[in-house]
Amino acid sequence: MTQYIESRRGHITPEMVLIAESEYLEAEFIRAEVAAGRLVIPANKIHLSKRLIPIGIGIELRTKINANLGNSELSSDCNKEIEKVQYAIRYGADTVMDLSTGLGIDFLRQRIIDEVSVPVGVVPLYQVCEELDDITDMTAKNFLDAVEHQAKQGVDYMTIHAALLREHIRYVDERLTGIVSRGGSLTAKWMIAHNCENPFYEHFDELCEIMRQYDVCWSLGDGLRPGCLHDASDKAQFAELEVMGKLAERARQLGCQVMIEGPGHIPFDQIEMNVRRQIEICNGAPFYVLGPVVCDIAPGYDHITSAIGATMAAFHGAAMLCYVTPKEHLGLPEMEDVRAGVIAYKIAAHAADVARHRPNARKKDDQMAKARYNFDWNEQFNLSLDPDRAREYYNKSRNKNTNCQNSNKNENENENYCTMCGPKFCAMRTTHNLNQLRKND
Amino acid sequence: MTQYIESRRGHITPEMVLIAESEYLEAEFIRAEVAAGRLVIPANKIHLSKRLIPIGIGIELRTKINANLGNSELSSDCNKEIEKVQYAIRYGADTVMDLSTGLGIDFLRQRIIDEVSVPVGVVPLYQVCEELDDITDMTAKNFLDAVEHQAKQGVDYMTIHAALLREHIRYVDERLTGIVSRGGSLTAKWMIAHNCENPFYEHFDELCEIMRQYDVCWSLGDGLRPGCLHDASDKAQFAELEVMGKLAERARQLGCQVMIEGPGHIPFDQIEMNVRRQIEICNGAPFYVLGPVVCDIAPGYDHITSAIGATMAAFHGAAMLCYVTPKEHLGLPEMEDVRAGVIAYKIAAHAADVARHRPNARKKDDQMAKARYNFDWNEQFNLSLDPDRAREYYNKSRNKNTNCQNSNKNENENENYCTMCGPKFCAMRTTHNLNQLRKND
Repeated sequence: MTQYIESRRGHITPEMVLIAESEYLEAEFIRAEVAAGRLVIPANKIHLSKRLIPIGIGIELRTKINANLGNSELSSDCNKEIEKVQYAIRYGADTVMDLSTGLGIDFLRQRIIDEVSVPVGVVPLYQVCEELDDITDMTAKNFLDAVEHQAKQGVDYMTIHAALLREHIRYVDERLTGIVSRGGSLTAKWMIAHNCENPFYEHFDELCEIMRQYDVCWSLGDGLRPGCLHDASDKAQFAELEVMGKLAERARQLGCQVMIEGPGHIPFDQIEMNVRRQIEICNGAPFYVLGPVVCDIAPGYDHITSAIGATMAAFHGAAMLCYVTPKEHLGLPEMEDVRAGVIAYKIAAHAADVARHRPNARKKDDQMAKARYNFDWNEQFNLSLDPDRAREYYNKSRNKNTNCQNSNKNENENENYCTMCGPKFCAMRTTHNLNQLRKND
Repeated sequence: MTQYIESRRGHITPEMVLIAESEYLEAEFIRAEVAAGRLVIPANKIHLSKRLIPIGIGIELRTKINANLGNSELSSDCNKEIEKVQYAIRYGADTVMDLSTGLGIDFLRQRIIDEVSVPVGVVPLYQVCEELDDITDMTAKNFLDAVEHQAKQGVDYMTIHAALLREHIRYVDERLTGIVSRGGSLTAKWMIAHNCENPFYEHFDELCEIMRQYDVCWSLGDGLRPGCLHDASDKAQFAELEVMGKLAERARQLGCQVMIEGPGHIPFDQIEMNVRRQIEICNGAPFYVLGPVVCDIAPGYDHITSAIGATMAAFHGAAMLCYVTPKEHLGLPEMEDVRAGVIAYKIAAHAADVARHRPNARKKDDQMAKARYNFDWNEQFNLSLDPDRAREYYNKSRNKNTNCQNSNKNENENENYCTMCGPKFCAMRTTHNLNQLRKND
């Protein structure tokens, strides 16, 4: 029994009840959304029996964010990756994906699943590829075994590039950056070498069988997502999206939950169209987007280029945002990159939640506004997405001012003015004063 | 003679010719836009006779960004501020505003004007206030003299809060954060204390006379801009906007150039409406927005919360974006905050230019895509908005990989794979390989 099958039978599961509470919605509404395929609960039964706290991902819920982590063949340190996972969750990641491609993939995955309470996603192809000399040596059985093994470990959702068909590959010739999805490029290489159709497409029903058994949620991977603004919204991308729509339908027929992965690199003016198209073609299946990046010329700042696109995507209906860190296009993220990426995406998700008027979304912003107007600095820090950073910057500024000749430290010990302007030019202080003048009138 | 008067007489000035070239547009088109009040060229004749390189600000042009700098009564170091100004311009600020409120305002302003080639803006009220014990001691003459003095120094545009009327003040009572504009709060305090109308409104024609003489561009300040999401798009904000529309018309009648300042803090879903409303009420006068911030709970990251709003604003027609730094709401920016703010806003402006299909806007993005696909790292750095940062991150990752046991350094000296994935999982490398396979077929 999966969450989807239960919902279709009219059953409200304990997970749906929990999600309803955390989203300020009715449990029956959650059930109906799951039944419509518009909401997924990535909760592998194995992980649920350990420490998973279930969450929902869907267009009617608070926007979720995912943090990608994992080692590479060039750099691997299991403890460091676990530390990063914990850091990402501490700053607010709703799910994590272990995208390891280096040594000890299996061990690291199990540790992550055992240690975290958020849903864990993987790309099962990576371990298959890592263990072979070349991806072209892979058989369908290799892959099915890997998926079953990873499902048994407790993985909550899996990215599989089942919708990239052989006939799509030629569309890539018009692109500037070809195929930029790792899974997509490996799948394409396999198809070319064997002159065969996509094995994940061919064995889709068998894969669904495994997914259903553990209630692993599908995350249909977009192997042909654009890797630059030039390639956005092209024939390759949309041909694959059409197949994703059909596979999503098929997966649901077989009792599975499905979400759809999305781009990538998209000019700002094409984001709304991309989201609307996905919703239409995939019948409202939750859209899980990577950014998108809206500007290709800012390596070192792609947490920002993509948080801009992510806000726009979530505003128009994307359900989960996969973070991008400042190291994107340059290297794998370190601890502080993870923090920067997570916070940028918490901002994007929150801005979209406020803009979509989700229940209680603006509550903390209003509390922050009051704390600012009352010069209550501790309350401001407590309400911040990153209290440590806010406190650090404030203290730095205050210490600098204290050392300065013009500081009126003694006179203003209670600091009822903003640290940017000082007492004479503090607008909020002036407003308090003029309100006093008005009362005295 | 101002640029506006020249344009109305059908004259194309040398400045219009320069701007046309840099924007890939026709000079006659630039003239027509100036004549329609939809494009301003903030170029004080005094500054123009020194080293100013004129730029245009308008809905049809590349989106411009401004960097605010200047000392405060709590912290002042003239050389440090000059360094910040130069740093801001190095990273791409199109204009700078000197918002000093501390000691030596006059000297610092003159140095900035003399040393920079970008337009310089100021808020003339700050010096007036700094020199008085209290703003309520100000007379109209104080202010007119200050404006004339600063115009003579060569200031290119001035923020004056002339549209905040006495009758608007009561609307502020419904707000959470009152008046958050420094100039706005001081003006309101003056009006309450004297029980008089806004002196800048009352003496508007005299101010226009000074502006016209030097061709200083008006930047009508929004003294009632919202300071939190709750206060956005309220009665106070829009009452002032109506007056701004009328003053813009009046200023043009008197031969002046005008732009309109905008918020502030606006939920993402209200940004389009705000920009459309400004364009309608102010008849297309260039909209110069501060952010807007789309989320109030991320102090320490407001360069990001506001770059998101700024992209949306520019996409819908804002002409200039005033940067916000990571220190916003916490303190004044240091050098690295200036850099972070400027780059975040270059990203916002560029993303909007691409989205609005401005001439040649996507050229560098396409070059970057090609450089990425060819593993041409030096070209990638050269095309970056911040080449130093991109190179720094890349080198850090590469050095880390080189020290790692799994590094294939000798085998891949030319590094034709991405530093994130390594050779086996590099999607672009795989695409090159599979293209080879297809050719061999």
